Amino acid sequence: MEQETSKITFNISKEKNFSEWYSEIIAKAELADLRYNVKGFLVFQPWSVEVMEIMYDILESILKRKGHRPYWFPAVIPEENFKKESEHIKGFTPQVFWITEAGNEKFNEKLALRPTSETAMYQMYSLWIRSYRDLPFKAYQRAQVWRYETKATRPFIRSREFYWVETHNCFATRKDSELQIKEDMETTYELLFDNLCVPSIFLERPQWDKFPGAITTSAADTLMPDGKMIQLPSTHLLGQGFAKVFDIKFKDNDKKEKYVWQTCYGPAISRIFAGLISWHGDDKGLVYPFKVSPIQIIIVPIYKTENKTKVIKKSMALKKKLAKEGFRVNIDLNETKPGEKFYFWEMKGVPLRLEVGEREINDKEYILFLRDENRKIKVDEEKLTKLIHDEGKKFDERLKKKTKEKFESSIVSAKTKEEIKKAVDSKKIAKINFCSLEKDGEKCAEVIEKEINAEVRGKKIENEEKPSGKCVICGKPAKVVVYIARSY
Amino acid sequence: MEQETSKITFNISKEKNFSEWYSEIIAKAELADLRYNVKGFLVFQPWSVEVMEIMYDILESILKRKGHRPYWFPAVIPEENFKKESEHIKGFTPQVFWITEAGNEKFNEKLALRPTSETAMYQMYSLWIRSYRDLPFKAYQRAQVWRYETKATRPFIRSREFYWVETHNCFATRKDSELQIKEDMETTYELLFDNLCVPSIFLERPQWDKFPGAITTSAADTLMPDGKMIQLPSTHLLGQGFAKVFDIKFKDNDKKEKYVWQTCYGPAISRIFAGLISWHGDDKGLVYPFKVSPIQIIIVPIYKTENKTKVIKKSMALKKKLAKEGFRVNIDLNETKPGEKFYFWEMKGVPLRLEVGEREINDKEYILFLRDENRKIKVDEEKLTKLIHDEGKKFDERLKKKTKEKFESSIVSAKTKEEIKKAVDSKKIAKINFCSLEKDGEKCAEVIEKEINAEVRGKKIENEEKPSGKCVICGKPAKVVVYIARSY
Repeated sequence: MEQETSKITFNISKEKNFSEWYSEIIAKAELADLRYNVKGFLVFQPWSVEVMEIMYDILESILKRKGHRPYWFPAVIPEENFKKESEHIKGFTPQVFWITEAGNEKFNEKLALRPTSETAMYQMYSLWIRSYRDLPFKAYQRAQVWRYETKATRPFIRSREFYWVETHNCFATRKDSELQIKEDMETTYELLFDNLCVPSIFLERPQWDKFPGAITTSAADTLMPDGKMIQLPSTHLLGQGFAKVFDIKFKDNDKKEKYVWQTCYGPAISRIFAGLISWHGDDKGLVYPFKVSPIQIIIVPIYKTENKTKVIKKSMALKKKLAKEGFRVNIDLNETKPGEKFYFWEMKGVPLRLEVGEREINDKEYILFLRDENRKIKVDEEKLTKLIHDEGKKFDERLKKKTKEKFESSIVSAKTKEEIKKAVDSKKIAKINFCSLEKDGEKCAEVIEKEINAEVRGKKIENEEKPSGKCVICGKPAKVVVYIARSY
Repeated sequence: MEQETSKITFNISKEKNFSEWYSEIIAKAELADLRYNVKGFLVFQPWSVEVMEIMYDILESILKRKGHRPYWFPAVIPEENFKKESEHIKGFTPQVFWITEAGNEKFNEKLALRPTSETAMYQMYSLWIRSYRDLPFKAYQRAQVWRYETKATRPFIRSREFYWVETHNCFATRKDSELQIKEDMETTYELLFDNLCVPSIFLERPQWDKFPGAITTSAADTLMPDGKMIQLPSTHLLGQGFAKVFDIKFKDNDKKEKYVWQTCYGPAISRIFAGLISWHGDDKGLVYPFKVSPIQIIIVPIYKTENKTKVIKKSMALKKKLAKEGFRVNIDLNETKPGEKFYFWEMKGVPLRLEVGEREINDKEYILFLRDENRKIKVDEEKLTKLIHDEGKKFDERLKKKTKEKFESSIVSAKTKEEIKKAVDSKKIAKINFCSLEKDGEKCAEVIEKEINAEVRGKKIENEEKPSGKCVICGKPAKVVVYIARSY
């Protein structure tokens, strides 16, 4: 289907009406169609898929560089496997889709459509891992998972089918597995910030909010324009719980049989995409980072009947030149007015627009529009590819600077319940001294949830902060500095 | 898990014991593990996944170049959709996995786990396509599909879960849709032969063997070493049948509302992989084409205690140099003998091996082993990257020449039933004059199946051959030249 330039411009305040902005831009930019006739399932359209494909490429190449190898495991898991780890089954059972028949045959044992793959993968690990020489064992798969969410679904953020990567890793010692958590944190920052210009903070979750079957869960949280946090990739220190039920043992250096220590990590590409568009978009529509935009440069020819051939010919030549340099470039040849094309591609979030008219051709100097700053600059034809390269880089650097500053200024210290409330009411994250993230702190978290409608998201795991004084809620000595926010 | 050099060498005659060869190499080279505890489902391991990922990249880039755009549709399809097209439901129902519950809730309407996506996609098409300007509409998705196969499953060739791409396209006229079938044929040859060095013949299937709901089905068939054909990508001229039940209409140039003409095309990556390893492998194991091998060059350092540091240092430097040029290169640093490493990587099918010893370092001339020909040549250090580039190209050219010659010589003309039998008994494809691929020819096909245990695969669609004389089976005037072979 040809990209058609629409006559209606997009104009919704992202800050004031985020919910409306989010729904409207998904429809307008054709990111996803929500009219599929199964609740909670949606159709992802090219303008989101093409970005998510690039995100997959980036993530998978980071994982491979760090020694993970790709597997494809079945999407179905026998009920028997699923029931092996008691916490896991308790946590996931309410969310599992079950396959109970095929053709005209009813199954004796039903099959789970994977909500996550621990119980599919670990029985195989027990067949594969024999010796300390097999460790570390670092595997990943690119996959979809299905969860029968009971909470309200929201496109890209929470749906009953989502796209992710899951890594599942085994180590000889607890120490090694803990180092993997740090590596996952670095991978997360590399993906989110270095490549997608999305800021986040990596937090270890409270004990009452961890992954079913894990010792600890840590995750990158980012802030949406409406002041709510969403969880982006999470990583779990699984300990030896799964290893014991799935019998994953190795003969160590010292000839003794030992259970492996495990971790798993699950970046949900479709949810990260939600963070990406929400951070960078503005009232005119999407803003895609140069690095991941399916079209990095859109060429708009500006012509009259008498010079149409000349302008289009030159535009095509420029497209060819840029494509040859490896840029993702396109040219809008629709029979609509330049102004409409401008609006359309601005709404679509294409970072750079090259305007080609007769004067520009004669002057050998073109106009380059920078989507993020709504600003035009002139670029010399001679140095075009070099300049586009530089402007692409600068584009993403500006996004990073802007989002980082905004995110950092959103974190405020709070010393009282009122200050917490004030922070989250003004769409910010409150940082407070807190009694405990162990079981005994849960009551204070409940107070925060009940009275302020906000959530204890956890504590930093890098440069862990020292608490001082008392827990803002219960007044007992503070053991930890925690972050509090509203959430989806 | 580190690649470990095994002490046992692989040695099975592919021609004599193909079935054993196939099973053993899958286990030995760690392509897939068949011990997953759901029948017909298997775990794909890195040494196959890494090739299939490259195959996906190649295929998707061809499709994008030809104007297809990527979508992700849900994996679940309501029963109601599924039932809309009567032929389709009849053909697929016996193979469908059904989801009937989630959490603790039983569904009112069950959901099909997609066996193919027509009935998921076309209801959306009816929302999207409005005008002749929206046509051609060419979409694809990279996806898994699930089919409850009742025939014997066989890894990569036929399993209950497989990996494919499906394109689904709409056109204004029948003519346009027929041209798409030709384009799909070219895409198939480009993928299979130009990139994977796998020969095939593109045949239009008999009417009694078409896709449920299609006007015609055409597919690329290739020959396995045991003389059986397997179907690789297939493409279907759907006509307007689905358009009518899913109401996909457009307003044409002449202002009239018309139903679209549709095609769909489904290259199964995992099955093509089966063809790839079966064509190129030999009695020592796999042979991967240079273009798609996860490791294109394996460097084996050959050292004694006294020169170990020097040799390894140089090997690492060579690896870095080649990696920088974009080659997929690795170095085997295991503490095993060079001979064992040679066997191991030959079994794994790595096309080129670079041997680095002290003498080679001093002479600035290394030994390059060519896996397909079991032959060593010398390569000058100065020209290393250029030579590797050339040898990689030559490697794949040799594979193409060899497989093409073999495939072409496997097709023999037959004038009697006995000649057909002789051909298929000697693992060949028989070409015969035949009465008809319409309904009235089915009886003759049944004779061939019953008496010779072979199948009428169809007729060529490019350079269609003129029949002469009578049908080899019934003696009526021949209307078509068809190809006959044993099959899986």
